[in-house]
Amino acid sequence: METSERVGRYVRMVALEGQGTELAGALLRVADDMAAQPGCLAYVVNATPDEPDVVWVTEMWSDAASSEAALSRDIGESGLGDVLALLTAPPDYIEVTPLGGPGLAGLPG
Amino acid sequence: METSERVGRYVRMVALEGQGTELAGALLRVADDMAAQPGCLAYVVNATPDEPDVVWVTEMWSDAASSEAALSRDIGESGLGDVLALLTAPPDYIEVTPLGGPGLAGLPG
Repeated sequence: METSERVGRYVRMVALEGQGTELAGALLRVADDMAAQPGCLAYVVNATPDEPDVVWVTEMWSDAASSEAALSRDIGESGLGDVLALLTAPPDYIEVTPLGGPGLAGLPG
Repeated sequence: METSERVGRYVRMVALEGQGTELAGALLRVADDMAAQPGCLAYVVNATPDEPDVVWVTEMWSDAASSEAALSRDIGESGLGDVLALLTAPPDYIEVTPLGGPGLAGLPG
């Protein structure tokens, strides 16, 4: 929808001690699933220098409805159940509104 | 270089009061320039819900050398001088290492 505002977020997750690599792997499997969801512009999994148990995900969606639809599915379907089992606490979110720039699919550079 | 590690960062900037839209506009002009720099995978400018003076940039680069080369140019060349003039304080950075997922150019989904 041309009139819907894009939504994005940076999601910070802390793994059980020593499980950062496993957490990143579980999130990369989720990313494979998210790539097929309507409106998913980005779901990039990031390690964190000097904090081996911290993983960030950069999400960008074409609109809020697409984001909600993809993330509110049964957690088994997306693989998010494996992710939740590796966390020490609920994720922290920074909500943003992607405006433009290179790397954002479907937007002018 | 296949063996070089990608680098990324989330950059948080706070505009002078009431200047958030101007700051985002200045950063979108920087983004046009960054799109032409070697190794730039993403330079996405984001507004922030409920914080009109806060702008985030999502950067992803193919390797640290490309990032340093693009960001260490004369600030007049990239347009970053216009950005710095609109800030209340130096930017805050969260450094990350992009691993994969949809939206990261050149990586498997």
